[in-house]
Amino acid sequence: MIKDLVLKNRTYRRFFQDVKIPEETLLELIDLARLTSSGANFQSLKYFLSYEEKANGKIFPYLKWAGYLTDWDGPEEGEKPSAYIVMLADREISPNHFWDHGLAAQSILLGAAEKGFGGCMFHGIDREGLKKELGLGERFDIVMVIALGKPNEKVVLEEVKDPKEIKYWRDSEGVHHVPKRKLQDLIVN
Amino acid sequence: MIKDLVLKNRTYRRFFQDVKIPEETLLELIDLARLTSSGANFQSLKYFLSYEEKANGKIFPYLKWAGYLTDWDGPEEGEKPSAYIVMLADREISPNHFWDHGLAAQSILLGAAEKGFGGCMFHGIDREGLKKELGLGERFDIVMVIALGKPNEKVVLEEVKDPKEIKYWRDSEGVHHVPKRKLQDLIVN
Repeated sequence: MIKDLVLKNRTYRRFFQDVKIPEETLLELIDLARLTSSGANFQSLKYFLSYEEKANGKIFPYLKWAGYLTDWDGPEEGEKPSAYIVMLADREISPNHFWDHGLAAQSILLGAAEKGFGGCMFHGIDREGLKKELGLGERFDIVMVIALGKPNEKVVLEEVKDPKEIKYWRDSEGVHHVPKRKLQDLIVN
Repeated sequence: MIKDLVLKNRTYRRFFQDVKIPEETLLELIDLARLTSSGANFQSLKYFLSYEEKANGKIFPYLKWAGYLTDWDGPEEGEKPSAYIVMLADREISPNHFWDHGLAAQSILLGAAEKGFGGCMFHGIDREGLKKELGLGERFDIVMVIALGKPNEKVVLEEVKDPKEIKYWRDSEGVHHVPKRKLQDLIVN
């Protein structure tokens, strides 16, 4: 059931770093993105894959972790992601990728959830720094980074009480809480 | 398997119009979107639902169908969608919905595929006209419209030959062909 997979697919920020993700698995995930719908069928998204300790270490410093957890700078050694997918927009194909990035990311992350992995999408990226680090040409914009690994944290959904209080938070036992709006509050008619 | 669902989830533009989609089904699809990740957890996307012939008829004229099929103005009576989900961004919550629209749409459409339905995402919308028609307030922007129904057309994927030839096309038997880039062409490293 897709609902089980959607529920399993939470945002994870701490992983079993020693559980590797082979290149082949990443390619299977990119294949899901490839087979996903694309606005005007441009298919302008491309991917840089990282799945080895050394390459992963180059990407990590360019990411900003969990804006709402102000006293946490990101996962410690041993809990870092095992792989990264850097999603790029190829400007030589199109200046506009519509909502393809979200469609593709959801396919990738549902695929990862099915395989027992989990991930986190990054918008907070030092894009210029990472572009230089990875040696990416002028034609590519970094759209997002997806960190992946075998999750090593518990994430629970709960109901939003005050509509303005939507920040996720971590309790004293390290459980990550995510307030979700009620279904009825999302329907306008 | 998520791959089967991703493959089943093609863009459909012709439907069995007499196969209705009940409100409850649409709410189940919105619930999938609700349970999907949201940038900074803002959850600023909201939804206008349409599933009755009369309401559907009000939305149809504001949509531009299949840009590449220049001799086709959209589905004829009997092949029109049975329902629409109008995805809105609530500016009072956030001016930025990151890539939430794509994530949510993919959850909705995979959920629809699982239930034997299919759909089409619209970017080409007369937004001002549709906002007025639906009586939506200033706080809402129309992000996309998803048309839904029981698909009444065959869609086949094929491999892109020339990287510049990515337009979908319909053959003399009405089969819709979608060229997809090769996996190896999406990986930059």
